[in-house]
Amino acid sequence: MLRFRLFEAPFIQSFKPHTFLIRAQMGSYSTTSSSAQNSPKLVFRQLFEKESSTYTYLLADASHPQKPALLIDPVDKTADRDLALVKELGLKLIYAINTHVHADHVTGSGLIKVGLKLLNLTKFPGVRSIISKASNAKADIFVEPGDKIYFGDIFLEVRATPGHTLGCVTYVTGDGPNQPQPRMAFTGDALLIRGCGRTDFQGGSSDKLYDSVHSQIFKLPKDTLLYPAHDYKGFTVSTVGEEMLYNPRLSKDKETFKNIMQNLNLSYPKMMDVAVPANMVCGLQETKSEAC
Amino acid sequence: MLRFRLFEAPFIQSFKPHTFLIRAQMGSYSTTSSSAQNSPKLVFRQLFEKESSTYTYLLADASHPQKPALLIDPVDKTADRDLALVKELGLKLIYAINTHVHADHVTGSGLIKVGLKLLNLTKFPGVRSIISKASNAKADIFVEPGDKIYFGDIFLEVRATPGHTLGCVTYVTGDGPNQPQPRMAFTGDALLIRGCGRTDFQGGSSDKLYDSVHSQIFKLPKDTLLYPAHDYKGFTVSTVGEEMLYNPRLSKDKETFKNIMQNLNLSYPKMMDVAVPANMVCGLQETKSEAC
Repeated sequence: MLRFRLFEAPFIQSFKPHTFLIRAQMGSYSTTSSSAQNSPKLVFRQLFEKESSTYTYLLADASHPQKPALLIDPVDKTADRDLALVKELGLKLIYAINTHVHADHVTGSGLIKVGLKLLNLTKFPGVRSIISKASNAKADIFVEPGDKIYFGDIFLEVRATPGHTLGCVTYVTGDGPNQPQPRMAFTGDALLIRGCGRTDFQGGSSDKLYDSVHSQIFKLPKDTLLYPAHDYKGFTVSTVGEEMLYNPRLSKDKETFKNIMQNLNLSYPKMMDVAVPANMVCGLQETKSEAC
Repeated sequence: MLRFRLFEAPFIQSFKPHTFLIRAQMGSYSTTSSSAQNSPKLVFRQLFEKESSTYTYLLADASHPQKPALLIDPVDKTADRDLALVKELGLKLIYAINTHVHADHVTGSGLIKVGLKLLNLTKFPGVRSIISKASNAKADIFVEPGDKIYFGDIFLEVRATPGHTLGCVTYVTGDGPNQPQPRMAFTGDALLIRGCGRTDFQGGSSDKLYDSVHSQIFKLPKDTLLYPAHDYKGFTVSTVGEEMLYNPRLSKDKETFKNIMQNLNLSYPKMMDVAVPANMVCGLQETKSEAC
């Protein structure tokens, strides 16, 4: 019954509003020196969806017997690929996480939950979807700034980075022993490599985005690896130090940044009217929103 | 004059045919424990060219004062991006390396050499192009199986992996102290993630390819990270262990593999008549082949 207890017992423990804690399990593990991003403990895969230029990230704790795993920003069109990889690597997918309500693609969260049941990859209780409370979207679990999302012994911190949308968050690997080093930040559309997400819809605000990036991301150690939700030029990763120096928008002062963002003259996102309503309900608008 | 000596003195030292050695410098450095792929010493970037789905890899030794760097399989269309990144990261690009004569895109090697001069990124003596001797293409340096390519304290081993073309090689990070761990193999088109390159032109042979992969790549440690020249499904990396189990072609016995390859019924590569002649001369067919 241990497995049941680990995954089905109250694995969400609210202590106080800003230390909301999610633990997939509470066991102790053999620890290894946390010397690098891919220490033996962390399984990490970056996956690309070409049509929307979206990156999905698979992370797992390989040192835990059940290899608990999570996906960040899965896409509906590549859900099959992601699930097949999870299965081949022998992982137990426990969370499908979004950084925000995307406007350019439909999330794979709902499909993955359904897919897991169809493929019998997990017996019980299946994957949980996670999104920020501020997004106002549906999900199994809502996170707030300061929350920690555990998968095995590794955790992600939740940082509020509004500006592209009102509910955008950045997930950052923990600052502690046995956590990946350098730290890794999954920035969604808040900070892209040499760019950033637009700020002209979904509660967007260039003023807020500037403050978010400067207070929540640029304060991280300079060697922190930045993994965005998209890239359009073929970059896969950057660092805090690089973006502070070379980001053509966010390395500027606030007024210059706001001017840049106000004069982008971007066209209306072609997927927006499909993607946003779908992503408010886990990407499964035409089925039951209970699947979120 | 130290800088001159390091890069201009005989940095290619032939000992005997199969221990041909390329050293960018011979100094001693402070060493760090070689605990992971991204130990503090190794700068590593994976870069994508969307049209031909090509991966270019940037590697550098950050612990060396001059941060010597190399590019594997650069593409002409993204040469600007790659050079800008090299500059921003403060690296000294010394080699532009190809795994083979590509048929689907034009190499960026020649452009990068010209670009370096134009951008004044290196004063002297500029980047050197490298390709296998068996490729019969032009380059500054020809490598053979067993050769080592040093950039700072880190080196790549050259392994012959013919079968996609006659001259294909795989570059593998060294097996020794202060080398990246897990090891990394840049497999070109010999081994793709859950696939492999076609074997029906350019001296291709399914028989040879099977032997190459099984004798040169699958004998590496199972946790060796595999970085191919292409991916069409959005994967960025795999491991030897994974491909031995899940590669739908190369996990089979040799006869089955040959049958699969003989029945692919692939169309003629649309870029082949442009790319192959250009890549025989560093991608600079219309200018001076001396630029190779």
